[in-house]
Amino acid sequence: MKEIGVVQYGLGPIGQSITKLLSEKKDIEIAGAVDIDPKKIGQPLSVLTGKKELSRIKVTENLEDIQINNEIKVAIHTTGSYLKEVMPQLKEIANSGFHIISSCEELSYPWKEHQKFAREINDFAERNKISIVGTGINPGFLMDTLVITLTGLCQKISKIECKRMQDASERRLPFQKKIGTGLTLDEFQKKANSGSIRHVGFRESIWMIADSLNWNLDSINETTRPIIAKKRLKSKFLTVEKGLVAGINQTAIGTIKDSELIRLNLLAYLGCPYPKEEVSIEGFPKIQMEIKGGVNGDFGTTSIIVNSIPKIIDSKPGLHTMRDLPIPSALLGKKESL
Amino acid sequence: MKEIGVVQYGLGPIGQSITKLLSEKKDIEIAGAVDIDPKKIGQPLSVLTGKKELSRIKVTENLEDIQINNEIKVAIHTTGSYLKEVMPQLKEIANSGFHIISSCEELSYPWKEHQKFAREINDFAERNKISIVGTGINPGFLMDTLVITLTGLCQKISKIECKRMQDASERRLPFQKKIGTGLTLDEFQKKANSGSIRHVGFRESIWMIADSLNWNLDSINETTRPIIAKKRLKSKFLTVEKGLVAGINQTAIGTIKDSELIRLNLLAYLGCPYPKEEVSIEGFPKIQMEIKGGVNGDFGTTSIIVNSIPKIIDSKPGLHTMRDLPIPSALLGKKESL
Repeated sequence: MKEIGVVQYGLGPIGQSITKLLSEKKDIEIAGAVDIDPKKIGQPLSVLTGKKELSRIKVTENLEDIQINNEIKVAIHTTGSYLKEVMPQLKEIANSGFHIISSCEELSYPWKEHQKFAREINDFAERNKISIVGTGINPGFLMDTLVITLTGLCQKISKIECKRMQDASERRLPFQKKIGTGLTLDEFQKKANSGSIRHVGFRESIWMIADSLNWNLDSINETTRPIIAKKRLKSKFLTVEKGLVAGINQTAIGTIKDSELIRLNLLAYLGCPYPKEEVSIEGFPKIQMEIKGGVNGDFGTTSIIVNSIPKIIDSKPGLHTMRDLPIPSALLGKKESL
Repeated sequence: MKEIGVVQYGLGPIGQSITKLLSEKKDIEIAGAVDIDPKKIGQPLSVLTGKKELSRIKVTENLEDIQINNEIKVAIHTTGSYLKEVMPQLKEIANSGFHIISSCEELSYPWKEHQKFAREINDFAERNKISIVGTGINPGFLMDTLVITLTGLCQKISKIECKRMQDASERRLPFQKKIGTGLTLDEFQKKANSGSIRHVGFRESIWMIADSLNWNLDSINETTRPIIAKKRLKSKFLTVEKGLVAGINQTAIGTIKDSELIRLNLLAYLGCPYPKEEVSIEGFPKIQMEIKGGVNGDFGTTSIIVNSIPKIIDSKPGLHTMRDLPIPSALLGKKESL
């Protein structure tokens, strides 16, 4: 039996992709998988992941149905973006003695806007002697961890800007829908107003940066605007006629006394010609970083969650954020390393 | 009295620049400065740094001459690149109860090539209940910490390349001399062979990356070549005639079974037209990062050393590396933040 046993809790596209990657890591054993979807319960994981070696593991409805005897127990939790919804799940998992790495966006930095939840999570983590972190590519890496790391080069900072430009054609269908692709302007506006079209996590990233720099922000303002197709656009899943919504332009700005200190900007739409990640730090010295071609969000989130396993099992019990863990690094099994 | 008292140990150009920056940080008090140069001993720090408020602090020859009563004591150590030379200093500082942040290149990752020293340092750090780290821009950040952080985005990695292109015209005279600027080819070759022209720290950066990824390298090979001036070149300090040495092209390669896994390349010369920092990770996903214009090494080292103060005082006693500390971040005093 391997030292680390992992349960995948939530088998949406990201959960499936994580399970696949976990199955390739030499020091990790997949001990089980949980989902509430009746179509998935009872299915062997091999069907959901395409990995034959996972045929003996069947999806269960409840965590308690899983037999796990590994010395170190980790749950990868990928079910929802909002703490209010996932709190009972986190509590159940922690009470069963699992470390938790979660893609829940609000968990990535809950100490500002969800202090009550944060304290409760920290309490049940400490009580069960396990560690919990919320992470992913964004929030969790590109717009916070990486930005904060780069500020380590600076003596003075007056403003931080971070911009992601993504070609949504490369992403899965739920992502394309989440950014409003194919909607009319009216439909987009309604969904944006109701909050159903919105990337969750900007506020968490901004607070994480601000706290790292001891900036006491007065406010964070978010705006969500559509990007309109200037010609007919196509993805593997959708065709968007000229004049309809190609994607999203979302901005969040953190201010002190009306002066803008942190600006995060996400542009994700079909046909974005120059996908990239940018971090600009106005200060001394000035830093202008770019990742050419950008980083595919689904692949990146899968990586970061799996790569966080060694960090979280070595950390002291409690609720962590990427800010207090050691620097990220890739977890390469022997197969991957050469 | 402020909570954190800092002693600057070593007052070369970097030590002076660090002292200047420390004097601007609101939570830090400069408690003293040590140097062996008879011309500096007895001088007020205001003369060496241009900061009037440091006039009451005089450079002393010995650490024991300094009165310090702050609750937390930190020494910034900037005297040499080689552990063999600085060991007695590190030991004396640690035995006096100071945390140590050092620019000593070999200290940045001593666990591979200087294990005996590393164990000894870790022992006297633990015994004195203080923490020690070696850091700077390189080694310490651009070619290791940042590279490792970016691997956090990856699931598989086959090769890592990191390239720094620097315009040495912007750097201080000792740096320009260190890279051979103005020498003939013969002179350069002799100095390169004797090791006096060489950036120290490539091996440390490569080992830090390799250990983070669990790569058991067979060997690290370093080469140092001159870059020849194709026309007359000028810096603030030097003029270099066509055909003489403009700077250095240094490469270090980490291999397993003759296959190249990690390649670090530093080009520093007068008139480099496109200074930049590059990190390329061949893998899945592939990562291509660039910092446009690069980062000035003197400013960067000053930043990273000062920014490491909160990290090191919050870490558990012993010898640390950037790999096991929390992610870097800027330490901004209130004056700097807006």
